[in-house]
Amino acid sequence: MAAHNILLLPGDGIGPEVMGEVKRILGFLNDKGALAVEIDEDLVGGSAYDVHGKAISDEAVAKAHKADAVLLGAVGGPKWDGVAYEHRPEAGLLRLRKDLELFANLRPAICYPALADASALKRELVDGLDLMIVRELTGGVYFGEPKEITDLPNGQKRAVDTQVYETYEIERIAKVAFELARVRSGRVTSAEKRNVMKSGLLWNQVVTATHKQGYEDVKLDHMLADALGMQLVRAPKQFDVIVTDNLFGDILSDVASMLTGSLGMLPSASLGAEDPATGKRKALYEPVHGSAPDIAGKGVANPLAMIASLAMALKYSLGKPDLADTLDRAIAGVLESGVRTGDIYVEGATRVGTSEMGAAVLSKF
Amino acid sequence: MAAHNILLLPGDGIGPEVMGEVKRILGFLNDKGALAVEIDEDLVGGSAYDVHGKAISDEAVAKAHKADAVLLGAVGGPKWDGVAYEHRPEAGLLRLRKDLELFANLRPAICYPALADASALKRELVDGLDLMIVRELTGGVYFGEPKEITDLPNGQKRAVDTQVYETYEIERIAKVAFELARVRSGRVTSAEKRNVMKSGLLWNQVVTATHKQGYEDVKLDHMLADALGMQLVRAPKQFDVIVTDNLFGDILSDVASMLTGSLGMLPSASLGAEDPATGKRKALYEPVHGSAPDIAGKGVANPLAMIASLAMALKYSLGKPDLADTLDRAIAGVLESGVRTGDIYVEGATRVGTSEMGAAVLSKF
Ligand SMILES: CC(C)[C@H](C(=O)O)[C@@H](O)C(=O)O
Ligand SMILES: CC(C)[C@H](C(=O)O)[C@@H](O)C(=O)O
Repeated sequence: MAAHNILLLPGDGIGPEVMGEVKRILGFLNDKGALAVEIDEDLVGGSAYDVHGKAISDEAVAKAHKADAVLLGAVGGPKWDGVAYEHRPEAGLLRLRKDLELFANLRPAICYPALADASALKRELVDGLDLMIVRELTGGVYFGEPKEITDLPNGQKRAVDTQVYETYEIERIAKVAFELARVRSGRVTSAEKRNVMKSGLLWNQVVTATHKQGYEDVKLDHMLADALGMQLVRAPKQFDVIVTDNLFGDILSDVASMLTGSLGMLPSASLGAEDPATGKRKALYEPVHGSAPDIAGKGVANPLAMIASLAMALKYSLGKPDLADTLDRAIAGVLESGVRTGDIYVEGATRVGTSEMGAAVLSKF
Repeated sequence: MAAHNILLLPGDGIGPEVMGEVKRILGFLNDKGALAVEIDEDLVGGSAYDVHGKAISDEAVAKAHKADAVLLGAVGGPKWDGVAYEHRPEAGLLRLRKDLELFANLRPAICYPALADASALKRELVDGLDLMIVRELTGGVYFGEPKEITDLPNGQKRAVDTQVYETYEIERIAKVAFELARVRSGRVTSAEKRNVMKSGLLWNQVVTATHKQGYEDVKLDHMLADALGMQLVRAPKQFDVIVTDNLFGDILSDVASMLTGSLGMLPSASLGAEDPATGKRKALYEPVHGSAPDIAGKGVANPLAMIASLAMALKYSLGKPDLADTLDRAIAGVLESGVRTGDIYVEGATRVGTSEMGAAVLSKF
């Protein structure tokens, strides 16, 4: 079996620390013979800017193209607040998404039973919650042109961003959602603002048309994005798969992740199209949380979202769904045993740091 | 004292029913001599389309221009799903906002103590919640051009919406937020996506610059819109005034309104600039809830958001802040006495319909 080629991009803030625990697990799996890996590492975000003067080097992008999976920690921090817009840390992440055409961003929001009481929502509303937000990731207002600030004759400025969607972009993300729903509970809710946006209107039409092209076994509903925001807070368990555009997906998935009480616990996968020749797809895995500069370097960050991102990589890129399940169960087991980093600490639990948490996960193997 | 000229636009669905209770209260205040009003009424939304073939007539818009305050019920419903985009019910509301230049949308999210248990959030997180979302309402992606769907040579379609903000639009809404904060708890949080959008970058810069022009007594924070969505769910009481753009405001205010457990209870005010000559500003008041077609015509809709919108009109347009307070206290009093429409019913309460609820509010005067 050829070794899997994995690129690690720890990034900024707590990124390197949480990535350290992923390295440890990968090393363990490799040594055990459970997963043959070849690991490379590079810079992204502010740390790349500090070295290369831009948020990711062309060399690192080339490595990402060749990798079976890219694992990314986090980017950004106040240190780079003054950096020009095109070199800000986020630009490295956005370039990776765009260059690798990672159009499908999968963001599970699951509520670990051991953490249900940490949710801001009443326990009965979130206990057992397991929904999947499928966010379009390479289109919309993130990348549309023009995107500029211009000077007006009157001395004022005018800023423009452009939301663009073409039929094929909506169709392919809808298919990802329908296919995911098939192996889940068979329901998709599509969210847009068709009452205000032409892109919402097209989104609605194309999702509806795609549904009729062989996906009618899946139940499809449409909801306005603002109403969906409300419903997420009111009764999140009504949803299974939610499919939406890049910007709505950004906000709604953050709201959803917070419902679980497991902030700092949630992973994400960003997938490209399947290569018809090899059956492989480009993929990047990253925690939903940010770089948390306030606690960076202290050894206290929670590595579980990063480790859960590795589990998604095992499932979607490395052909090891069983190992993924084992890892997910190990995470749940550690939580049940009362081991907690500071962010999810509750009275009576055993408070640990980043590396002890990583070790605790490994000890469940 | 000249009578106040009030235009009622009941609209669609439950709009006419909830507006009926506002008429009753206005009649009562007028008869009592507490408020001299001259009332006119017209169509908006689907009901205007059915009569005029468009979602608001030029005549109704002209009346709105002349009114001291416009009160609007709700627009939309499945009956008009097939109507062309430019004639959909929402177009009537959007035209009013744009033609009257109602750039400042004030959306309070308050948690009535009597309803705190109805929130999806734990009681301690929302009890006493009182925040104000100030949403920019005449700019951004709602109105920017191009806004179109075009046919591509390959048979596919391409949809475009354009987010545009100019300096003066951001400056004037920032001022509204700072001035509101001064009569509240003195804090403003501005939300955008400056890490992805040029309009977010300009937003951030202009809000910061405006703050320095005489508003430094107000505490200003900036938060990314996705992070703010999270924080709203995690700990909403950290916020006082939130200022944000049209689209973020749409979603975030819906999320915020749901936190309160008082959905169907919340009013909004949409204000234009002050006329320097008269000191008056154009204004439209409407509930945050929609037209609820499923319960329309049954006499069960909750009129309290519409009545609370009248209270905002008394405060911001009709020069009667004391009457506004009386009305707000009447609403809270009715809730405390256990009178409830179906949407907020709990065991042991007295279940009433729309007109009984209106009567109950009046009985507290
Ligand atoms: C870091 C930022 C550019 C990014 C986004 O807006 O997509 C983040 O919020 C996310 O959700 O992955
Ligand atoms: C009805 C619709 C056009 C409107 C909007 O999107 O602004 C509504 O959702 C609102 O928030 O007032």
